[in-house]
Amino acid sequence: MAEETLWAKGLALDTIIHGFTVGDDPQVDLALAPHDALGSAAHARMLARVGLLSEADMRALVTALRALHDEARVGAFTIRPEQEDGHTALEAALVERVGEPGRRIHLGRSRNDQVQLALRLLLREEVLVLGARTAELAGAFLDFAQAHADKPMPGYTHMRRAMPSTFGLWGAAFAEALLEELEALKGLWARVDRCPLGAAAGFGVPLPIDREYVASLLGFSRVQRSPIDVQNSRGRLETATLSWGCSIAGGLEKWLWDLALFTTEEFGFLALPDAFTTGSSIMPQKKNPDVVELARGRCRELRGMARQVEEIASGLPSSYHRDFQLLKRPTLTAITSLRELLEVSTRLVPALKLRAEAAARACDDTLYAAHHAFTLAGRGLPFRDAYREVAHQLADGTFQPDRAALTATHLGGAGNLGLAQARAELDASRAWLTDTHRALAGCAERIWHP
Amino acid sequence: MAEETLWAKGLALDTIIHGFTVGDDPQVDLALAPHDALGSAAHARMLARVGLLSEADMRALVTALRALHDEARVGAFTIRPEQEDGHTALEAALVERVGEPGRRIHLGRSRNDQVQLALRLLLREEVLVLGARTAELAGAFLDFAQAHADKPMPGYTHMRRAMPSTFGLWGAAFAEALLEELEALKGLWARVDRCPLGAAAGFGVPLPIDREYVASLLGFSRVQRSPIDVQNSRGRLETATLSWGCSIAGGLEKWLWDLALFTTEEFGFLALPDAFTTGSSIMPQKKNPDVVELARGRCRELRGMARQVEEIASGLPSSYHRDFQLLKRPTLTAITSLRELLEVSTRLVPALKLRAEAAARACDDTLYAAHHAFTLAGRGLPFRDAYREVAHQLADGTFQPDRAALTATHLGGAGNLGLAQARAELDASRAWLTDTHRALAGCAERIWHP
Amino acid sequence: MAEETLWAKGLALDTIIHGFTVGDDPQVDLALAPHDALGSAAHARMLARVGLLSEADMRALVTALRALHDEARVGAFTIRPEQEDGHTALEAALVERVGEPGRRIHLGRSRNDQVQLALRLLLREEVLVLGARTAELAGAFLDFAQAHADKPMPGYTHMRRAMPSTFGLWGAAFAEALLEELEALKGLWARVDRCPLGAAAGFGVPLPIDREYVASLLGFSRVQRSPIDVQNSRGRLETATLSWGCSIAGGLEKWLWDLALFTTEEFGFLALPDAFTTGSSIMPQKKNPDVVELARGRCRELRGMARQVEEIASGLPSSYHRDFQLLKRPTLTAITSLRELLEVSTRLVPALKLRAEAAARACDDTLYAAHHAFTLAGRGLPFRDAYREVAHQLADGTFQPDRAALTATHLGGAGNLGLAQARAELDASRAWLTDTHRALAGCAERIWHP
Amino acid sequence: MAEETLWAKGLALDTIIHGFTVGDDPQVDLALAPHDALGSAAHARMLARVGLLSEADMRALVTALRALHDEARVGAFTIRPEQEDGHTALEAALVERVGEPGRRIHLGRSRNDQVQLALRLLLREEVLVLGARTAELAGAFLDFAQAHADKPMPGYTHMRRAMPSTFGLWGAAFAEALLEELEALKGLWARVDRCPLGAAAGFGVPLPIDREYVASLLGFSRVQRSPIDVQNSRGRLETATLSWGCSIAGGLEKWLWDLALFTTEEFGFLALPDAFTTGSSIMPQKKNPDVVELARGRCRELRGMARQVEEIASGLPSSYHRDFQLLKRPTLTAITSLRELLEVSTRLVPALKLRAEAAARACDDTLYAAHHAFTLAGRGLPFRDAYREVAHQLADGTFQPDRAALTATHLGGAGNLGLAQARAELDASRAWLTDTHRALAGCAERIWHP
Repeated sequence: MAEETLWAKGLALDTIIHGFTVGDDPQVDLALAPHDALGSAAHARMLARVGLLSEADMRALVTALRALHDEARVGAFTIRPEQEDGHTALEAALVERVGEPGRRIHLGRSRNDQVQLALRLLLREEVLVLGARTAELAGAFLDFAQAHADKPMPGYTHMRRAMPSTFGLWGAAFAEALLEELEALKGLWARVDRCPLGAAAGFGVPLPIDREYVASLLGFSRVQRSPIDVQNSRGRLETATLSWGCSIAGGLEKWLWDLALFTTEEFGFLALPDAFTTGSSIMPQKKNPDVVELARGRCRELRGMARQVEEIASGLPSSYHRDFQLLKRPTLTAITSLRELLEVSTRLVPALKLRAEAAARACDDTLYAAHHAFTLAGRGLPFRDAYREVAHQLADGTFQPDRAALTATHLGGAGNLGLAQARAELDASRAWLTDTHRALAGCAERIWHP
Repeated sequence: MAEETLWAKGLALDTIIHGFTVGDDPQVDLALAPHDALGSAAHARMLARVGLLSEADMRALVTALRALHDEARVGAFTIRPEQEDGHTALEAALVERVGEPGRRIHLGRSRNDQVQLALRLLLREEVLVLGARTAELAGAFLDFAQAHADKPMPGYTHMRRAMPSTFGLWGAAFAEALLEELEALKGLWARVDRCPLGAAAGFGVPLPIDREYVASLLGFSRVQRSPIDVQNSRGRLETATLSWGCSIAGGLEKWLWDLALFTTEEFGFLALPDAFTTGSSIMPQKKNPDVVELARGRCRELRGMARQVEEIASGLPSSYHRDFQLLKRPTLTAITSLRELLEVSTRLVPALKLRAEAAARACDDTLYAAHHAFTLAGRGLPFRDAYREVAHQLADGTFQPDRAALTATHLGGAGNLGLAQARAELDASRAWLTDTHRALAGCAERIWHP
Repeated sequence: MAEETLWAKGLALDTIIHGFTVGDDPQVDLALAPHDALGSAAHARMLARVGLLSEADMRALVTALRALHDEARVGAFTIRPEQEDGHTALEAALVERVGEPGRRIHLGRSRNDQVQLALRLLLREEVLVLGARTAELAGAFLDFAQAHADKPMPGYTHMRRAMPSTFGLWGAAFAEALLEELEALKGLWARVDRCPLGAAAGFGVPLPIDREYVASLLGFSRVQRSPIDVQNSRGRLETATLSWGCSIAGGLEKWLWDLALFTTEEFGFLALPDAFTTGSSIMPQKKNPDVVELARGRCRELRGMARQVEEIASGLPSSYHRDFQLLKRPTLTAITSLRELLEVSTRLVPALKLRAEAAARACDDTLYAAHHAFTLAGRGLPFRDAYREVAHQLADGTFQPDRAALTATHLGGAGNLGLAQARAELDASRAWLTDTHRALAGCAERIWHP
Repeated sequence: MAEETLWAKGLALDTIIHGFTVGDDPQVDLALAPHDALGSAAHARMLARVGLLSEADMRALVTALRALHDEARVGAFTIRPEQEDGHTALEAALVERVGEPGRRIHLGRSRNDQVQLALRLLLREEVLVLGARTAELAGAFLDFAQAHADKPMPGYTHMRRAMPSTFGLWGAAFAEALLEELEALKGLWARVDRCPLGAAAGFGVPLPIDREYVASLLGFSRVQRSPIDVQNSRGRLETATLSWGCSIAGGLEKWLWDLALFTTEEFGFLALPDAFTTGSSIMPQKKNPDVVELARGRCRELRGMARQVEEIASGLPSSYHRDFQLLKRPTLTAITSLRELLEVSTRLVPALKLRAEAAARACDDTLYAAHHAFTLAGRGLPFRDAYREVAHQLADGTFQPDRAALTATHLGGAGNLGLAQARAELDASRAWLTDTHRALAGCAERIWHP
């Protein structure tokens, strides 16, 4: 272990132990670096405001941090293996660039709350990005539903043909799920929108730091008051983020499964564009739905990653334990994977090729049995009698439904998808995402250039 | 084990298949029955309003449903095994009590959306109850923090004595986590607060039902428009509810672990009241913290139940599949278990016996090393130099911190727990819970007695 | 929900704590009771042999335990709620029936190793039963494969028609997986086949007990030497058993998924007998594959139960913790569920109705493309050239495979399923199960009637 | 996508889709490459033997494959991004080096069974390595137990002082668990020891390949007959391997938790050597047990990775699906992590510093209460009376146990750890590992140099 690591006391550690403790930090922390720089700049401004740092030192630090932030954003920031983590690397870079003031930046904080702040800023940004990607995909489904609102296809229950449906009804379902996720996002935001800085190692600091000020600088609505809870929340927010992500993916998984099914030779209601298929190493006739399968697999993989995060975060007494270091990799990997999943899906929705005739052919009369029973019952027959009546007609081959009359026109039915209402909800969510993003970008700008 | 059992041919096909398909429904559905009755009454009112049911039939149905609801609430409703599920039993009871109109109640709905509505009403109620229990426990922690705000104890990181802390700081941490859960509840509420009725088997009905009306009768803010999404949300809401529950339990797990640790002979900062301990079958000297251990185990068990629900809910194409029947038992078991966990914890917090002197004795000078380094740094020394200075003092035995001066007085610090702010947040959450509960109770009243 | 419930103060402390600590034990322990009786009888015999119990007392105890064992086997043993668990109930029954000697049975053991022994005996028995059920199902699949060895169906990759297959090839696959599980069972057996008695509370007893003797009485191959490891293995064996069970279920899940798929209107290669289907509450035309879906759901549910067990078992320091009490319910529920799954599946395999003509019709020429390329390559063309050649034939419509010549006749291929080899493996596994079962039954007999 | 990929048909895929389908393969497949080379060489030998490849071509291929194998073992084999996976890269390298024969290697196999074989060979090797590491660690624990067999420490139940124990008793427990894992390994081996080659894409090939021959060349005991089961076992073996790994880690987790606890200031029975601790960024007095915490976290992380693998492997119909590609990364990461965990633990066991005096001091008389009651009962008092007697002595302060007489001398007790028996078991497991490894190395040698 090189001298310069943050806590060096001259102990000798052999290679295996060093590798074990450093882990993936030098790679993983690259993603945290820009957030660490921004959080450090806010910290420096606060220290100056309460008189713990000179204005000149603060200005030197903020200027250097801004450069480091910009470098980190474009991948130009590096962490040397002997630096072990990004926080050490950041402080070393500061000392190198501005000298003495760099050695003052760590006043009033610990690596623990420094990491938590960087993670919080990263999560906050990623959650907004995931929200935006979710909104785009919801929009794609709404467009699909609108474009194909009148094209019939069988509706399935138990994977058996059940009732009349349309491609529009089918597409609108996935939009509706995503709109719910965008509403549920606000519960997650209530967790993310709390500033941990000032908790130090979990017990605060005996200095007149101003936690409300640094929170407001960074655009947080509130301070995460309890320093112990700041440590205890390590993993809690990551788990909540991935739970939300898994819920999104759970909705997509159904769509992807439908695609895998509806594009078989046997169903044949949809076809995948060539760009989304691949061939076989031995079967020249094959076009395989690899993208759909990999996307479906990603939904399950994401649940596995969420379990990994939950496992690591749980089972411990309160306060900080080093076990938490292991949270970073699966959290970042999962977020990236979900983002890619949303992006690929957004491209795939409009590229789907409908085989509308095949789908229409599959809509035989029996699909209308329940609908017909309902209309008989609507005219006064007890429903159980209507059901039996239709069963008899089916049995003796006399069932002849009036298809045109058997459309569901209530809200959400095939004849009344409620797309305008859905679009209004989507617009509201988009507006919230945009406004929030803009406000936070403004905060960052004011930290860099007050 | 008798000789013949190993290769025994077992039960008759009918028996085995019947048991397999019916499963736990006759037991589990008892919890759903009152909600099914309420939902059915709202459905009947809607049918009457749009002209699909006569006023007289509607009144007969609502009166009978109200009686069934009240019976179900006190455990007087029964499901016979041959009825297989609660929905069949409810309809049979209606037919038995009011005759012909009972056979009209199923008009315009399917068992699928009937179940989804009953589950939604149940989840909605349980989520409010869990919220209320969470709020009570948060209040207990705030009381604890206030009562013991000034009593010192060591603060731990890595399970090693680290910095000065207090029982107040410790207790406030668990309150803060629960307050966050109460805020996050709103994301869950956005999922629960959608009326599924009218989706039928996932494709709507060709009748002029009024989904907005039935939603407003039942106090839902909105209709879950997409009938397919209604089926797709089977399991999604249960998973979201248990994820929230697991997050609550994850916070308590840390507290329970702390209790297990702090009540050991070795730590000895706390003692459990006798009512919360048990003896050993062979060791007369033992008082074991069984309640704490079982509560801690329940936190892990809950995660397992959540996985069970998530597993069952996932991995399928869109729309209804019978697999979903298996969701009911683990969901209900998990909710009950969490409620008991919250109730036991709320009893335990004020019953904890502090061993304040032992805790104070454990607070040796070394706990103040970082605090002292911070104050040196606050006077102008670069923090890294202050850190080394204190390290030297510790090494040569000259370290003598001025404890009184080393209290964290910023928001959230041991000297400024921010309990008033926390109480204000708690009050706001309580008010929301009470108001929402009252509004929903009012809706139910108006359904029964318009 | 009544107005007052939201903030209700609930039950009295005693009631709530009692319920919390007792949990499900009075129900769950009924399954353990016969095993507890047998283990206790072996313990009594050992105590007598080493002189810690008189012969007369031993005989009285063994006689009474045998009666209790037989009662427990037929459900006539009861645990009163105030007895809290089955071990207390057993000892109480002994004292009641034989007086003073009943108070001597607990000498040299603790409830900890008593529970562990009862659980071990139960797991040992259940593992043999599960093995037997697995073997029966494997036999059913082999019969199916043999009966339908020559009936063609398409083989799928990526859920796309890929290569020629047969119903025999398909059925043999599930047999092969189960045969592997029966081999893997031996690894599980190596865990289960260790006698924990004598570990007491995890640190042994200062008495000259003979652990090897009691182990041999009970038919265990070895003593689980370390008393601490006996406690540490609480949950480890349960987890291993359920991991094995999940692997079995994982194989069945694929078969059940295939059934769900191949019985759709679209595929139509198989039909389910009526006894395995149910109707719809609103769609008179429907026959739904509920049994298949519930069985498929059980496979996922089982994974969830396994997670629950693994969660409860993990995350703790060594030795006994009360958290482990929660292991019993999910373990027993999971084992029962898996047994039912195996039994239902064994009934279903021979009841499947083949639609062999539809399957044969689906086998178009393109399925033979790879096979044809292989034979071209077998005659000397580099495979990549053969692949391209066939691709061209497919493209210009000249592809005419000689189907008869394109059968895989190597071991495992459609023309050489290797069923005799498979049956020999199955017979060997069945023999091991029967022999082991017989040997253990003999041990029990000798304990009851030496 | 470049022309040279294995299935190129000239489709255009944009970057995002390309990245999505290629995934981590170019990195992950580097670990598979040496196994792919060996498996390909065995395949070539078999093709030659049955007359599907000339001797000259076979020799050219084997020579080139051997060079590629050696390069891959030292990290000198590379996969270009446009080659997408290692199998394409291997075949391209063969064509480049030996020309025409390189284009004949794919005869009679598919990428599906090629991957499965490479994975099987890798798993087989890694399982032996993990076995060896487990044996080394078991040996370290046995040495520890022997060295400290007589040093007293308190034994805990419920994390409360319970009975007299020794460091030897404690250390032997973890050895015993690992010895069980080495026995259970044989169940896993029964799964791994089956040759998948010849399954092609899951339906065999219409060529006279000799599956038994290639299996015996590679040292497999048997052929995995069913080609469909070969595909179905994708993920099953990975899951079984990680379940076994999680069981090993579950035992270590308890040891690591004990270390975290016993090295606290409050317990103080053990100390960690400096090489296994790190400092704090703000607390100069701290020595944190980071290695122990990270190792403990790795145990939980491993469970998460196992869940990821199980998720990806499950929930699909039979035969191959592209979802399975995602299995490779978590499987390899988990195996590497477990190996490191075992290696670090093996270093840590002998480096632990005992604070034997502190541990002895903690052994007060009350620890002997149960032991004393047992000896009273051994002299004829019913145990329940002895228990009460000791309770009275404890209450009135007259309890004075004769410690020397209260040692457990039965097998496994503190006075009779049974280390010789344990060492004999360890030697047997070591011998099996060595013999098996040697046999397989011999097979490889004969493939390269017959």
